[in-house]
This record gives sequence, structure tokens and C-alpha cells, in this order.
Amino acid sequence: MQLPSVLVLNGPNLNLLGTREPAIYGAETLSDVEQMCRDAAARLNLRVDCRQSNAEHQLIDWIHECRTQFDGIVINPGAYTHTSVAIADAIVGVAKPVIEVHISNVHKREAFRHHSYISPIAEAILVGCGTQGYVLALERMATVLAKKVAK
Amino acid sequence: MQLPSVLVLNGPNLNLLGTREPAIYGAETLSDVEQMCRDAAARLNLRVDCRQSNAEHQLIDWIHECRTQFDGIVINPGAYTHTSVAIADAIVGVAKPVIEVHISNVHKREAFRHHSYISPIAEAILVGCGTQGYVLALERMATVLAKKVAK
Amino acid sequence: MQLPSVLVLNGPNLNLLGTREPAIYGAETLSDVEQMCRDAAARLNLRVDCRQSNAEHQLIDWIHECRTQFDGIVINPGAYTHTSVAIADAIVGVAKPVIEVHISNVHKREAFRHHSYISPIAEAILVGCGTQGYVLALERMATVLAKKVAK
Amino acid sequence: MQLPSVLVLNGPNLNLLGTREPAIYGAETLSDVEQMCRDAAARLNLRVDCRQSNAEHQLIDWIHECRTQFDGIVINPGAYTHTSVAIADAIVGVAKPVIEVHISNVHKREAFRHHSYISPIAEAILVGCGTQGYVLALERMATVLAKKVAK
Amino acid sequence: MQLPSVLVLNGPNLNLLGTREPAIYGAETLSDVEQMCRDAAARLNLRVDCRQSNAEHQLIDWIHECRTQFDGIVINPGAYTHTSVAIADAIVGVAKPVIEVHISNVHKREAFRHHSYISPIAEAILVGCGTQGYVLALERMATVLAKKVAK
Amino acid sequence: MQLPSVLVLNGPNLNLLGTREPAIYGAETLSDVEQMCRDAAARLNLRVDCRQSNAEHQLIDWIHECRTQFDGIVINPGAYTHTSVAIADAIVGVAKPVIEVHISNVHKREAFRHHSYISPIAEAILVGCGTQGYVLALERMATVLAKKVAK
Amino acid sequence: MQLPSVLVLNGPNLNLLGTREPAIYGAETLSDVEQMCRDAAARLNLRVDCRQSNAEHQLIDWIHECRTQFDGIVINPGAYTHTSVAIADAIVGVAKPVIEVHISNVHKREAFRHHSYISPIAEAILVGCGTQGYVLALERMATVLAKKVAK
Amino acid sequence: MQLPSVLVLNGPNLNLLGTREPAIYGAETLSDVEQMCRDAAARLNLRVDCRQSNAEHQLIDWIHECRTQFDGIVINPGAYTHTSVAIADAIVGVAKPVIEVHISNVHKREAFRHHSYISPIAEAILVGCGTQGYVLALERMATVLAKKVAK
Amino acid sequence: MQLPSVLVLNGPNLNLLGTREPAIYGAETLSDVEQMCRDAAARLNLRVDCRQSNAEHQLIDWIHECRTQFDGIVINPGAYTHTSVAIADAIVGVAKPVIEVHISNVHKREAFRHHSYISPIAEAILVGCGTQGYVLALERMATVLAKKVAK
Amino acid sequence: MQLPSVLVLNGPNLNLLGTREPAIYGAETLSDVEQMCRDAAARLNLRVDCRQSNAEHQLIDWIHECRTQFDGIVINPGAYTHTSVAIADAIVGVAKPVIEVHISNVHKREAFRHHSYISPIAEAILVGCGTQGYVLALERMATVLAKKVAK
Amino acid sequence: MQLPSVLVLNGPNLNLLGTREPAIYGAETLSDVEQMCRDAAARLNLRVDCRQSNAEHQLIDWIHECRTQFDGIVINPGAYTHTSVAIADAIVGVAKPVIEVHISNVHKREAFRHHSYISPIAEAILVGCGTQGYVLALERMATVLAKKVAK
Amino acid sequence: MQLPSVLVLNGPNLNLLGTREPAIYGAETLSDVEQMCRDAAARLNLRVDCRQSNAEHQLIDWIHECRTQFDGIVINPGAYTHTSVAIADAIVGVAKPVIEVHISNVHKREAFRHHSYISPIAEAILVGCGTQGYVLALERMATVLAKKVAK
Repeated sequence: MQLPSVLVLNGPNLNLLGTREPAIYGAETLSDVEQMCRDAAARLNLRVDCRQSNAEHQLIDWIHECRTQFDGIVINPGAYTHTSVAIADAIVGVAKPVIEVHISNVHKREAFRHHSYISPIAEAILVGCGTQGYVLALERMATVLAKKVAK
Repeated sequence: MQLPSVLVLNGPNLNLLGTREPAIYGAETLSDVEQMCRDAAARLNLRVDCRQSNAEHQLIDWIHECRTQFDGIVINPGAYTHTSVAIADAIVGVAKPVIEVHISNVHKREAFRHHSYISPIAEAILVGCGTQGYVLALERMATVLAKKVAK
Repeated sequence: MQLPSVLVLNGPNLNLLGTREPAIYGAETLSDVEQMCRDAAARLNLRVDCRQSNAEHQLIDWIHECRTQFDGIVINPGAYTHTSVAIADAIVGVAKPVIEVHISNVHKREAFRHHSYISPIAEAILVGCGTQGYVLALERMATVLAKKVAK
Repeated sequence: MQLPSVLVLNGPNLNLLGTREPAIYGAETLSDVEQMCRDAAARLNLRVDCRQSNAEHQLIDWIHECRTQFDGIVINPGAYTHTSVAIADAIVGVAKPVIEVHISNVHKREAFRHHSYISPIAEAILVGCGTQGYVLALERMATVLAKKVAK
Repeated sequence: MQLPSVLVLNGPNLNLLGTREPAIYGAETLSDVEQMCRDAAARLNLRVDCRQSNAEHQLIDWIHECRTQFDGIVINPGAYTHTSVAIADAIVGVAKPVIEVHISNVHKREAFRHHSYISPIAEAILVGCGTQGYVLALERMATVLAKKVAK
Repeated sequence: MQLPSVLVLNGPNLNLLGTREPAIYGAETLSDVEQMCRDAAARLNLRVDCRQSNAEHQLIDWIHECRTQFDGIVINPGAYTHTSVAIADAIVGVAKPVIEVHISNVHKREAFRHHSYISPIAEAILVGCGTQGYVLALERMATVLAKKVAK
Repeated sequence: MQLPSVLVLNGPNLNLLGTREPAIYGAETLSDVEQMCRDAAARLNLRVDCRQSNAEHQLIDWIHECRTQFDGIVINPGAYTHTSVAIADAIVGVAKPVIEVHISNVHKREAFRHHSYISPIAEAILVGCGTQGYVLALERMATVLAKKVAK
Repeated sequence: MQLPSVLVLNGPNLNLLGTREPAIYGAETLSDVEQMCRDAAARLNLRVDCRQSNAEHQLIDWIHECRTQFDGIVINPGAYTHTSVAIADAIVGVAKPVIEVHISNVHKREAFRHHSYISPIAEAILVGCGTQGYVLALERMATVLAKKVAK
Repeated sequence: MQLPSVLVLNGPNLNLLGTREPAIYGAETLSDVEQMCRDAAARLNLRVDCRQSNAEHQLIDWIHECRTQFDGIVINPGAYTHTSVAIADAIVGVAKPVIEVHISNVHKREAFRHHSYISPIAEAILVGCGTQGYVLALERMATVLAKKVAK
Repeated sequence: MQLPSVLVLNGPNLNLLGTREPAIYGAETLSDVEQMCRDAAARLNLRVDCRQSNAEHQLIDWIHECRTQFDGIVINPGAYTHTSVAIADAIVGVAKPVIEVHISNVHKREAFRHHSYISPIAEAILVGCGTQGYVLALERMATVLAKKVAK
Repeated sequence: MQLPSVLVLNGPNLNLLGTREPAIYGAETLSDVEQMCRDAAARLNLRVDCRQSNAEHQLIDWIHECRTQFDGIVINPGAYTHTSVAIADAIVGVAKPVIEVHISNVHKREAFRHHSYISPIAEAILVGCGTQGYVLALERMATVLAKKVAK
Repeated sequence: MQLPSVLVLNGPNLNLLGTREPAIYGAETLSDVEQMCRDAAARLNLRVDCRQSNAEHQLIDWIHECRTQFDGIVINPGAYTHTSVAIADAIVGVAKPVIEVHISNVHKREAFRHHSYISPIAEAILVGCGTQGYVLALERMATVLAKKVAK
């Protein structure tokens, strides 16, 4: 039986990870984070594919791919969290479980960061767990996908 | 005399038409809809060109093309309806009549879908007519363009 | 088999059509519009009955008639669009498809005209198509009623 | 030359004048007020016609009459001030100068009475002058109509 | 001594009772409800007069009648609850105790139904008691009127 | 067959009844009210248990008791009406019909008293009926519980 | 017996009258207006004193003078209408009747001009009567002061 | 060296877990959840103490205990999330890391559940992970406490 | 003659005084503050009783005691300032003068701390005077109670 | 050593003290209050200078004087509390401790009086202590200035 | 030909420049800035007159002078930016181009500083350029005035 | 020593410059503007690189380049000013001074154009200076970069 597969998406400016505002986002680079995800996936018997883009439409296209290629999505939509109805619609369109991750605690920041277009359609939301948030999201996703299979 | 020409634009996630939330959007695919538009155009003596993109900038670039290549635009901006000032500015910039179409009745849905950046600058808005909305929009566009010629 | 029947309702001040603010509403009179509706209905194999009133209660009474006398309603509620919960309740009460029409583009006008009590319970909304909006609404209604029969 | 003519309209509940909340509205009855208006009109060389209705549609119909029968309107729309877009639209539709009168100072009362749909389209607004407000409104109307003739 | 008298008023669309949205409003017709009121009145030693209208001005006129003909009002203003300042003003104008009744629990419904122009001037408000609400309102009215006599 | 049982709960400051602001709340004490409830219950063939607490958690605990000990709740949550999500959640958690009672007409008072966390989840709401409100609530509860049994 | 005396105050920028935005404010200068006031006062048996200042504190000082020197105030507070709590407090402090005048119809202008700190404490408000507004205000003031004497 | 210790707190109504709205909260009871926490703690080399209360003050007192008895808090404040400034102040007062957990996705529910007084002062927030959320929170807490020691 | 008596109440988290956020609240402990109050009372010829609780209901019960046991209340309601309608109702219920004290300047802090349910019903409010605020409040209370006796 | 010096400022309309709305502001005149301040200062070993102006700019100029002439400010900004950013900026500009005093309890009055531009930059705020508020403010100021010296 | 002339106005507290909050406003004094303006004017072939006042009315009077004495205004309205409708009206009244300057970036500061009554009627706005902003404003003004001459 | 380098970015629809709404944006084309920038840079001893894109992600990528390739950014973000958190985050991420330019005065236009996500993180903002705004921005940037070097 094929392993359940998860697309791990990072949105705009997350390619700067480790260099941008390290006091907020920590010192690990995006590629450190992606390696953490692959390690966790191996441990959790998941396949993962990690991608990052600054482009809203690229993220939408990748989400669309999930219809046939992935069983779930772990996404840190970055700034698009607060502005992109289109990404939220794409997620609804592919009908797969999505877990939203934010490295920093957005509730300590500007008011416009307290609203997410993704949260009302997400399976779960993990905020402020640093880069460990991706690993915890994969743990939860493993459980969610296992339950789906069980049904 | 050349036929009046209309650019039919579909925005993000409309490539999923027929597969995404069929209860809301119906079972026709985007290519069914585009064929309906071409059929209606033939009947209405219009030239149409149908395009879809998930990318805001691609829609902007196509709208800019209208300055010299098209007489009017029928657009379903999808989620960008509610978030894209840039598309609205592009429409104002090209100064051609635009008809906004939404397949579903957005007023039955989330509050943020009740506001459109496009509506205040559109010629007309058709909401909730299903995919027939595109055809009705072309009928109205034919009248609008005919009146312009008549002046 | 009897033709499907549609009640075409016009609300307050629409009796002034052709005389009131022609820059916004065009030069056709209400009776021109009603004739256009009858012509379109003939073409679409619909029976139509066209009525206008400045009185909210008269519109409510006519909508109630639809329970037994009509299969659908095309309504331009005029100013009652923005203020009449009672008309909206009447529409819900008779459980027939309703298409809302506005001659001008209300989204170019005062903010209080951007909200409609009818839209969330309407089948479809056509805005800014001039008096042609009634004809397009009848076209859509013909499709909607045909689908109902087909079920 | 015919005298300029003014329609004096009173809206809902003003038939109770003199009996309803005399601390706020004074002890004069509606017919006292109408007599005051006729006396002032005689002095000002105006023709007046005074009418009252509790029905929104009746007020709309009378305003429509102004298109051909009157040169101006003095109106105390009562509670419809705050709720009737339809009356405001009727006023715009007949394109005659309108002066809005309120017997009591609405700004001392509930917040919802601070907004008027009529004020933005009125020539002038007189608030809190008691029943003398009608007379002052006719004085102003006489000036306004005289200026119009002078043009 | 004459029995205290109560006017029982029903507003717009309540003539549809028993046919309109029975899941919300129950299966009893308006005439069933009016019979329940008359039965309760007999038991409570009240005279009642039951009337219904879809017209705001008709309700206003009937409320005005209370000045001389009734000791209290039980009213279900239907949709006018949320939009009619004029009815509220009429109630204040006649200075009789008024009990507001809503058959369904309006607080489970759209936000605009949570505000009532009548409640701040009512003696009491009964919401969500089904058609029994009219009977309970009459019971309370009997007490209120008895206390007034006692003073 | 056992009689249906109803828990009658009074929230903070209602122990002051009869002494606190008698102009608003009347001269009866809490124990008068509780005796009224017991008398009404006897007449209505209900068992009632009357309790009062100033503590939010105590009210929550008593509501939890309803899961196994009572068939319905009549509650005057006092000030917690406007601030306690926890009490509302407790009510939802026990899934029994709840009728909300307020002695005074809260809609005549400060704006923050116009919102209730309980109302959207209550079966019915009785406001401004004085202490008779508890009796009317029990009458309605008797009907509600009788219908449940009948199903 | 001494004539009743009225202080006529004009606030900031009204010294520009006749030169500033004549389309809105008309061609009469401030001194024309003040002469109109003196003429009207003579006719109405009032003493008037006309003053203008751009300074909030000067207007406050003059209002304070009213405590002992004047029986009423006619004031066009200009822009201070919308921003000066201090002028409103001064008016309350002297406890004399105040009539607020605005030459143009402020309700046709920016939203911030629709709120007045003076209106809730004014005797009456006259808006949009052009410079005739001052004369009408004096007419009303004459009546108000006459009634006071009569008491 | 002593193991780091974590207080696991559950707020109002969480004692109903497994019985209350199982579609939202799952079938596990509070004691199942507490056992999961103890198992996870054992695996993570943490000491945990699990407590639940419906009383705001009890939760405050337990949080105060953390000053000397615990190194961190995992808290599901239930309904107090949205209403308790006092609990948030207690957390700030003890200056220990706090992770907020919600079993269901509060962003799919009523608007008032989208605001948390705790989130702006929490280390991390986990929403919608079911009862697994507690385990993930303990995993994160283990990392946070390990980093503190490392400093 | 008995000395006037004052209940000094401290709300949630004030037991942490001296340990919690000393930069904001200073280094004195609650017992230091209570001693300051007793010293000041001795000087002012007042009896004082100082109590603290984290429980809303306990504060309510103590306030109720004032009906018969105390002449006034000095209260620092802590976080309940912003959330407790019940405490405010208790204060209104006992009809004794209340002075509200906040040690820190709440207006420099989060927006939700700028609103107090207590302030509109308090005799006076002292904010940002540090722990000296309690002493100043007692000085004011002494004056207020002396005036009452004098009447 | 020179005594610490305090500027006591009173804003607009406070020159009316003792005559304006005595029910709210008491019967003492401004010069009574200033004498009370001088007496208190003598007792507290402070120098005070008491000034009043209705002019915003005069208050600003006096505050600027504090840079070199005074150690602290006690200010009752009157109506400028709610409208003057300029006075608040002046206070920030001179960087001396400021205590804000209001004679009446502004929280019992209009909503616009609940906001102060001064409070977020003040050392302390005393509201509703009558004219004794100035004395209490000087007591607090003495403590604040003593602490500064002590540092 | 006479040089174009520009009035450079500084509003309240700008006399403190160089002393007030140097971290925000820099170390240059007002007279340094005025010298910079004169130097720049010499280079740009403009006449300038530099004035500062803390008084709203003084600024208004100076703006009025522009009608006949100056061709344009460069203004830093300081705190009056956010509160003075009267200054904005004065500017509109003199119909000369106005450039608004703020030394600091007001968008980094309190929310009330984000709104300017001047901006909607200004020719241009320069924010956060330090004292160089005045020079850049004069450069722009030179261009604007040159274009006017050219027309 | 290498010249300081500045990236000049233009956002969506600015490629239409000179053709789009010339009444608002002037007749110069984008390439005219870019030449003006290069000329100004030469004069100011700056290196500039001018780029335009309609794509949000392209602008983000170019801003990221600034980390290593440029010392500052002059940006006219066009419509993305009002909608792009992602561009603002990119700017924060690269930690270089940014000056925001708008050709037209956005404060004269729709309300949604009054808010900028860029302004709170920009060094300076220049609005309404026409295309000269870019030159003035470069002048300011030259000063800012010179000061940085000087430190």
C-alpha cells in the first residue's frame, strides 16, 4: 500500500527564513525546515513534497495538484494568510485536509495578522511553535489521514 | 466592417469548474463554458477570445491588451473580485466596458464575498445565473457595443 | 401543458421610468419595459403578468399570489431593495424562484444602495443592464423553470 | 401670472399632533398647523395644498403629483425621514425644491433619528422650530421659487 | 364595569401562518391563532379584537384607534419590527401598554432580526414561544391592566 | 409516570430581589418568586427545583446536573446573560430546552444589556413580564415538555 | 421695557463670505449678512449684536458674555460645529436659547460635516437656507424669547 | 536533575468531554485526555499535573501556583478564552510559558470565538487538532523548556 | 457616634502585588497596601476592612454585605473592571458610594482596558496613582461620607 | 533647596465654575479652587502657579513654559481633553509629569467624554472627586516629584 | 516679473523643534528649518515667508492672507492636521496650492495620526523626510507654480 | 568608493503611464519617468536601476535582491499599496530604507486608497507630486544613505 502523501507549502518571503527577522522567525533556513519535514515524514510513514513560492498563482496551481497527487496539505501561507481569498478557494476546491502553520505567534503582531482566510477552512491551525510547528502539523496530519483510511 | 470583439476572462480556480463544489458551480467544465461563449458570440455577431488564469498579473496583462485588441470584457474575476485593486485599476486604465459575472449567488455566501472592487467600475453585474450568466453577459455586451457604434 | 408563468414586479418610483433621471434610468417608459417583457415572454414560451406599485403592502400581496398563480418572479424592488424585510419575507414565504433586477448599476451610487435584503434569498441578480435586464432575467427564469420541470 | 404653488406634506403620526407627546410636539393640532401654513402662504403670495398620510406610498404618489402640479414641497416626513429611501427617490424623481421640517429637535433624541434620507437631497432643513418651522420653511420656499423665476 | 379591551395585531406575512415555513412558524393558521386569543381572552376576562395587515399604514391607523377604543395592544409586528420607526412612534403616541410577540426565536436568525424598534418602548417581549406566545402575552396583559385599574 | 422536572435558576444579584432597585425589579423577594414558581408548577404538573447563585461556576455545575436530573431549565442569568460564554456552552452541552427570563425590559436599559449569549441557544425568551415572567416561562415549558413526550 | 437682545455669532472663515466658494455660500459678504440681521431685528423688535471670529476662545468668551448681556444666541459655528466640545460646553454653561445656522446644506457635503456638537444642545437648527437662514433664525428666536417672557 | 513540570489545565465544560457535542469534541472523556497527557509526558520526560475546573477563580489560583511549582502551562481555557481578562492577567503575572489548546477549530464557529484574550500572551496556540492537541502542545512545551534550560 | 466604615476590595491577581510585573505595579505587597489603608483610615477617622479575592462571586457577596455593614466601598476590581457586569450590578444594588482605583495607568495599556463597567456607576475614579491611589481614595471617601452625614 | 513647583492649569469654561451647572460642578468658584490649591501646596511644600484660559494656544504656551519653570503639571483640560491633540503633544514635548483632573465623573456623561487625548500620556488621572480632585492631585504630585528627586 | 511667493507655516509645538523628542523630530531648531527654507527659496527663485504659531486662529488668519499676498502654502499643521476642519476650510477658501509636510512618519505612530483633514485638499503630501521635507516641498511648489504661470 | 545604489520599482498598471487616466497621472510615459530617475541619480551621485512589473511576486523577488545588491528602494507599489502584506513583509525582510511614492494624491480618491500597508514600514512617503515625486524621493534617499554612511 502506498504511503499517504503530504504537500508542504511555504508562501511569500519564507525563502528568507533564517535571514529575515531572526528574532521573530529563528535562525533555521527554509532548507533546514524542509529537511526537518522530510525527517519527520520518514518517521511518520508519510511521503512529503516541500515547495516554496512567492507567487500566489503558483501556490494555487500546486494546491490544485493535490486533487490527484496528495492526500493532505501543510501550508504556511505567509502574508497570503491575511489577503488571499484565491488560495482559500483553491483549498476548498481540492477538498483535502489542510493544516495551517505560522512560525511566529501572529496574535502578538499587527491586528491585520489576526485574521486568516485559511483558518475557517483548515483542519487545524498551529501558531507560534517555531519551525517545530511543521513537524507537529505532520504528526497531526498523519493521524487525520490514518483516520480517513480507517473509515 | 469588423465584428465587435470581446475578451472573456476567468480568474483563479475557475479552471476547476465542473469538479470544484458542483453543488455551487454546476457540472459544466471551463471548456464547456468557453464553447457556450463562442456559440453565443456567433449568434450575436461578436468575436470572442476566452482565457483563464490563476495569476493576477496575467489577468492584468490581458486586460491591458484590450486597449488595442478588444471592444469589451466579460470577466468572472473569481476570488480576485474581493481582493484585487490592481485588476480594477487595469480595467479603469483601458476604458472599455466590462461586465462582471459570478456563477453562484455570492450574496448567499460569506460576508467578504458581498464586496467587489470591480462592481463600481463595471458596466453591469450578473450574479447567480449559473454558467448561463456568461451568455447573458455577452447578450448585454452586444447591445452596449452596438449603442457605442450608433453614437 | 400550460406555459410556465412569471410575475414581473416593479416597485416604488418605477412608474416614473422614462421621465425620472433619464441619465441613470434611460428614456423608455414603464409601459415600454412591460411590452419588452411581454415580447420576450412570447419568444421564451412564458406567460408574464407585469405590475407596478409604490406600496410595499401591494407588492407583498402580489408576491403572496405567487403561491398559487405563478411559477417565478422577476422583481425590481426599487428603493424597497434596501429597506424592506417584509418583501424579503414574503418571497421566502412563497418559495418560488425570484430574480432581482436593477436598471442602473447601484454599486456606482450611495453606499446604502449596495445592500439588498432581497439578494441573499434571490435565485439571481442582474444589475446595470438597463431595461434589457428584465429580458435577460426572463431568459434566465425560463432556464430555471425548465430545469425544475425536468427534475 | 399664476402664484407659485407649494405642497405641504405631513407624514406618519402627525395626524396625532396636539395629542401625542405634547411636551415634545406642542399643543397645536394638525389642522391648526395647516391653517398657519395657509395664512403664511397668503402673506407670501404662495398657493399651498396641505396633506397628511400615514402611508409611505400615499406620500410618494403626492410627491409624484408635484411634477406637474406644484413648484416646491415642504415636508415633515415624520418617522419615514429615517427609513424611507423610496420617498427620497420620489423627491429626486420630481426635481422640485424640497424643504424638510421637524417640529422637535431630533438631535436631542435617539441616535437613529439623527440620520435623514431626505436631508442630502433637500434644499434646506429646519429642525426644532416647533410648528413655526412650517411657516419659516414657506418663507424660505418663497425666496427659492422667486430666485428660480428670476433666472 | 366594562371588561378591559386588547387589540391583537399581526403584521406582514402573518396571513401566511401555517403555510409559510412551517418548520419555523408551526402549522396553525392565523385564524387558529386568533381563535386561541379569543378563547384565552374569555378565560382572562378581556375583550380582544384580532386584526392582521401587510400594510404599515394600516397597522399605524389601528394603533391610533387604541387611543379611545382599547386598553392595551399585543402585537407581532413581523418584519416591521426591524424597520418601522413609524409603528414605534404610533405606539408611543397612544400611550397604552404594548406587548411584543414573536412566534420564532429571532435570535437564532439573521443579525438584522436581533434589533427591534418596538422593544425599547414595549411593556414586555415574548420570543420563541410559538403561537402560545400570544396567549402568554394576554395573560401578562391581563395582569398589567389589572394593576393599572388598581392604582 | 414521573412528572417532568424543571430547574429554575437565578443568577447574580437576584438574591437582592425586593430590595435592589424596586422601581425596576418590583417588591417581591426571591423567596416570593420561588414560591410563585412552586405554585405554578403544582398547577402545571411539573416538578421544580429553584436555586440561586452569584457564582458563574455554580450555575454551570447546576446546569450540568440537568443532563440526568431535569427535563428543562428556566433561567434568569442576570448579568451573566451579557458576559458568560461558559454558561451558554454548559446549556448547549446538556441539550435540554432552556427558557430565558428577564424581570425588567432590558431593551430600555444600557446597550450592553441588549445582547445575550443565551438567547441564540434558548428555546424562548421572556422579557419585562416582571416576576410573572417565571410563571409564564413555566407554562411554556410545560407545553414544550409535553410535546417532547408526545413525539 | 427693554427689547430682548440676541448675539449673532459667526465662526471661522465666515469673514471670507462672498469671496469663498460662492457656488456654495452665495455672493453676499459678512457685512451684508450682518446688515440683514440688524434689519430683521429692527422689524422683530430685537436688539442684535453681530460678531465674527476665527478663534475658538473668542467665541467662547463672547458666549460667556451672554450670561448677563444677551437673551439668546444665533450662531453659525462654521467648522467648529464639528470639532468644538468647548463651544458646546460654553453654550450649556450660559443656559440661554441658541439657534444654530448653516448657510449651505451640510448634509450634501463630507460625512464629518453631518455631525454637530452644537445641535443636541441647540433650541433649533436651520440648514441650507442661505444667508436668509440668519433672518429665519431671528424670527424663531423672537418667538422663543416672547414665550419665555410670557411664562 | 528534576524533570521539568507542566500544569495541564482544562476550563469550563471540559468535564463534559466525550458526552457534550461529540461531533465537535470527539468521544474521548476528560480522563482519557488526561491519561494521554500523562503518557506523553512520560515519553517526553516531563512531569504533568492535570486539573479541570468550571470556576474562573480556581483556574486563576492554579495558575498562581505555577510561580513556584511548575515550569510551564498547557491550557484549554474553554469559554473563558473569549471572556476572561483575569486569567490572562494571571498568566502574565506568573511569567511562565503557556500553550493554548482548543480541541475544535474555533474559526469555523461563532465570531465571538475568534478572539482570545490568551493568544497574545501565549507562547503558542494549537487549534483543531482534537484531543491530540494536548500531546502536540506537550511536545512543543518540552522543546521550549529545554531551550530555556540551555540558555 | 460610630465612625463611618469603608470596605476596601481588591480583585483578581492583586494578591500577586509586589511580585507581578513590578515595573507596572510597584514593589509593595498587598499586605503593605492594606496596612497603608488602615493607617490612612486611622488618620481620617474611618473604619476600614480590607479584603481580596480572585473570585467574582466572592466580590459580589462582599459588596452585598455593604447594604448593612459599610458606608462606602473603595474597589480595585482588577481585570473584572473590564468584564464584570455582575459586580457593577451588585454595586448599583447596594446603593453606597464607590470609588474605583487602578494602580497603573490603564490608558497606557491595551484598548480593552480603557473601558470599565464600574466607572459609569462610581462616585470617583483614581487611575495611575500607584498604591497611593488607595489612600487618596479614602481621603475622598471621607469627604463624601462627611457630606452625606451633613445632609 | 528650592521647593518643587507645579503649574495648575484649568481649560475652557472653568472660569464659569460655581455658576455653570452647579449640580454637576459644585458651588465653588475657580478662585476658591485656586485658593484650595495654594493652601494644599503650602501644606505639601510645593510652589504652585494657578492659571486658566479658554484658549488652546494659551494652554500650549503655558505648558511649554514648564520646560524650564515647573517640575510638574496638574491640568483639568476641560473640553480640550476630548479634542486637543496639540495640548497632548505639548505635554509630551516638555517631558514633565502631568496629572489630569476632572471635577465631575465624565463616564456618567456623553460617550465622547469617555475618551481623553491626555490620559495615555498622563502620570495619573483623577475623575469625579469634585474640586477636592485638585488637592488629591497635588498630593500625588508631591509624591511623584519626591521620588524623582530621590533617584 | 515678480517672483512667485510661498508662505511656509508651522503649527503647534513646532517652536519646540530641536528640543522636543529629538529621536523623532531631529536636532534642528525651527529657526534652522526656516533658514533652510529661505536658502532653498533663493535657489528656486521663490520668495518665502516663514511663520509659526500654536494658535489655530492665527494659522487661519495667515492662510486668509494668501488670497492676496502669496501664490502657495507649504504647511506643517502639526497636531491640527488631525483635528482642524477650520484650517482645512481656510485653505479651501483661499484656493491656492498647498503642500502638507510632516517631519516624522506619522504612519508609524498612533492611529489618530493617520488621518489628516488637510490631505484631501492638498496638492501634495510629504511625510517622514525629516526637515528636508520642507525643502522638497518648496521644490515641488516651484514646479506647480511654474506650471500655473505657463497655462 | 562605490556609489550608493537605489532600486526604483513601479507596480501594477504603471506600464500604462501616459496613456491611463492622464488627468490623474500626467502625460509622461513610464520610460520618461525612468529617464528622469536616471538623470536625477546622475546628479545625486546614485546608481539607480528602474523596473516595473504587474506581478506581486516579481516585485517581491526584486525587493529580496536588495539584500545584497541595493542600498535603498524607491517604490510606487500602485494598487498593491492597499492590498499586499507580502510586499510589506519583503521590505521588512531586507531591512533597507524604502521611500513610497504616489504620483496622484490618493487622499482625494476612494477611501480604500487611504490605507497603505507600506507606509508604516517606509522611511518616507511622497504623495501627489506627480512624476517629480520620484526625483524628490531620490533626493531624500541620497540624504538618508549619506547619513547611514556617516554613522
